[in-house]
Amino acid sequence: MAVKLYHGDIVYTPSADALAVYENSYIAVDSGKVEGIYPVIPEKYKHAECIDYGRQMIIPAFSDLHVHGSQYVQRGIGMDCLLSNWLNHYTFPQEAGFKDLSYAKKCYDAFVDDMICHGTFHANVFGTIHREATDYLFRKMEEKGMYGFVGKVNMDCNSPEFLIETTEDSLRETEIYLDSHTGSGKVKPILAPRFAPTCSEKLMTGLGKLAAKYHCGVHTHLVESIWEAEEALRCFPGYHSDAEIYERAGLMDHGPSIFAHVIFPTEEDKRIMKKHGSFSVHCPDATTNIIAGIMPLAAMHDEELKIAIGSDVAGGHSIAIYKQIARAVQLSKLKEFYEPDQSQTITLTQAFYHATKEAGSVFGKVGSFEKGYQFNALVIDTMEDSWVPLTAEERLERFCYIGDDRNIRARFIDGKEIHFEN
Amino acid sequence: MAVKLYHGDIVYTPSADALAVYENSYIAVDSGKVEGIYPVIPEKYKHAECIDYGRQMIIPAFSDLHVHGSQYVQRGIGMDCLLSNWLNHYTFPQEAGFKDLSYAKKCYDAFVDDMICHGTFHANVFGTIHREATDYLFRKMEEKGMYGFVGKVNMDCNSPEFLIETTEDSLRETEIYLDSHTGSGKVKPILAPRFAPTCSEKLMTGLGKLAAKYHCGVHTHLVESIWEAEEALRCFPGYHSDAEIYERAGLMDHGPSIFAHVIFPTEEDKRIMKKHGSFSVHCPDATTNIIAGIMPLAAMHDEELKIAIGSDVAGGHSIAIYKQIARAVQLSKLKEFYEPDQSQTITLTQAFYHATKEAGSVFGKVGSFEKGYQFNALVIDTMEDSWVPLTAEERLERFCYIGDDRNIRARFIDGKEIHFEN
Repeated sequence: MAVKLYHGDIVYTPSADALAVYENSYIAVDSGKVEGIYPVIPEKYKHAECIDYGRQMIIPAFSDLHVHGSQYVQRGIGMDCLLSNWLNHYTFPQEAGFKDLSYAKKCYDAFVDDMICHGTFHANVFGTIHREATDYLFRKMEEKGMYGFVGKVNMDCNSPEFLIETTEDSLRETEIYLDSHTGSGKVKPILAPRFAPTCSEKLMTGLGKLAAKYHCGVHTHLVESIWEAEEALRCFPGYHSDAEIYERAGLMDHGPSIFAHVIFPTEEDKRIMKKHGSFSVHCPDATTNIIAGIMPLAAMHDEELKIAIGSDVAGGHSIAIYKQIARAVQLSKLKEFYEPDQSQTITLTQAFYHATKEAGSVFGKVGSFEKGYQFNALVIDTMEDSWVPLTAEERLERFCYIGDDRNIRARFIDGKEIHFEN
Repeated sequence: MAVKLYHGDIVYTPSADALAVYENSYIAVDSGKVEGIYPVIPEKYKHAECIDYGRQMIIPAFSDLHVHGSQYVQRGIGMDCLLSNWLNHYTFPQEAGFKDLSYAKKCYDAFVDDMICHGTFHANVFGTIHREATDYLFRKMEEKGMYGFVGKVNMDCNSPEFLIETTEDSLRETEIYLDSHTGSGKVKPILAPRFAPTCSEKLMTGLGKLAAKYHCGVHTHLVESIWEAEEALRCFPGYHSDAEIYERAGLMDHGPSIFAHVIFPTEEDKRIMKKHGSFSVHCPDATTNIIAGIMPLAAMHDEELKIAIGSDVAGGHSIAIYKQIARAVQLSKLKEFYEPDQSQTITLTQAFYHATKEAGSVFGKVGSFEKGYQFNALVIDTMEDSWVPLTAEERLERFCYIGDDRNIRARFIDGKEIHFEN
């Protein structure tokens, strides 16, 4: 693959507090990887093909580190329910439908297309307990060129009779699932015990053995609500924190550990997560919709815990990670209002960093434009109707707050353009 | 005008807790007004023209009871600032630009078009202190057929030197403004003292006299933050509540009184508002963005105060009232989380009622489909990709949560279709 150049206003976040801005510049891409960014075309590339996006903005594509692919078709309904009604009336019956592969295909096809439409090219996805449907999702994401982790869900207790497995079935189906995916491609399998309250200790231990045998990580919900934090310890007597359940099972030793919500982490949860380099995934709309509270994001970042952003469709209603970036800033302000200590608010740049470079690090070198990173990128038209020329940071912010998929004018994965009709 | 029929799934809220649903039905419109809703075409209308929208949803158009038209061009930027930076760096300098009429025209043209695009046909709008620009906004809304109140803003103290008037100028310009608009059309003038901290007592008293002379109401911000509530009483010694400032000035006697935010109303504020039938306007995104807190909507509704919904562009970033409906439900859940008393959460139906029928009542008979109401309506395509047929309430909810202007397939004001290219 020859070097290609793209001209525009190039923006990314090398660190949480730095927005790198190269206006009116050229990004050189060699074999799908970023080679460098230049104010003028360097002599060595003077014969390279150059695509000119004018003053449109070129930004890294987004990562969604917590999303239920199977709930995609139910997004935006039942949102004024309380959690138990939402689970029992909407979510559990809907997920039970995934035993029918033709139903699953329709849902997952639409889900994967819509992620790509909204610029999410890297995703950590919950399937359902159904292996065949989860297999289909895995291959669909592979076929579309995405980066991802896909988990077959495990639930062997405290679950409705139409959405439960025996411990043995759960482990056997999981092993068949792991066995059929080498994990050598861009999409990899991950273990996905739903959460501690729906998994027996025997199941967790069995999953830990599979983690060791197949070298894979874990994706689940952790201290996602006061109820869940208490229920986890009630179901696992003798354990001292929600995180300890996964650590003692050996689920955090062989791959990434990715925990959704993490709203009420104890010191012990944080110690364990830090030790294993775990991700805590902030899902602002979802934790609002299910009345779970607001993650102490700024404090956890200061404590050097890894933070990512998730849509949590369909607890969250919007699949667009850029909207969750805006929402993360908003919720940090509400947290400051209700728990004032002058340190809760985050900036747009910080939220963008968590949703791109930091979240992307779990997939490899994606989510930034430093040399050697994959050119997984979006070209954004940023609605220049304002009264003075906006700064790059303001244009990025405006896209996150009021933009939609129509503002995404081009999409690249590994340097290849994905053609997509909005 | 002959009777016309529209076929679809017809949905509106006759009261806060009732969603009226007429699936697969016909709404008859006579001279721009709703005549009735029928399951089959009545004999008397068998020769009437009928437009068939299939199973698309026909709903009342939205009312936005608090929006700064002049801030439209700055929406979605500076949202991670604290309030003082947002005002001083963005809002005040931007509003100062409205002394230039050509600048104002560009902003207001885009603003009015975008309201209509998103289905807001009735709006209570803040201009700026500049009379000519506000005149232009007034006539633009008239020209487009909207219903509205438009206010020339007053600010004679505690304001930046580039955005302040003398008391005399403020009153004189306001009188010229009122004098040039009879108020007999669908768009009417309203008084718009910015808020108590930027208006002297002398100015308020003068505005009260104009209210009596020109029979107009008042639109301002009330107890919008802890700071504002305290500052208002500091600026107006001898007054016991923010609302008393407007009541004593005589600003609540001659037209509607519409108060934005109302987050910390005292018993006295509520008593005065109830006495005058005032509206309290909940602007969920804005009060989040400026860290002001969450209106006690459910409690105020129970106390029989009138509640409306506002976009508060550009403290709020989104002009779409349907998104603020969803956000109002979300914030009610966050309020329940932080101030738990089992009574804070509201339903989608309740939020929709406040944004349509209740808010609409200030403009006349708009916002509902009972007999005699104006046919100010939207035809909504509600994205039927779900696993089971959705109820009308679920389809309405889904539009509010994840829809956008592309889902609005037709728009009617006074029975006339507004042709609009998305």
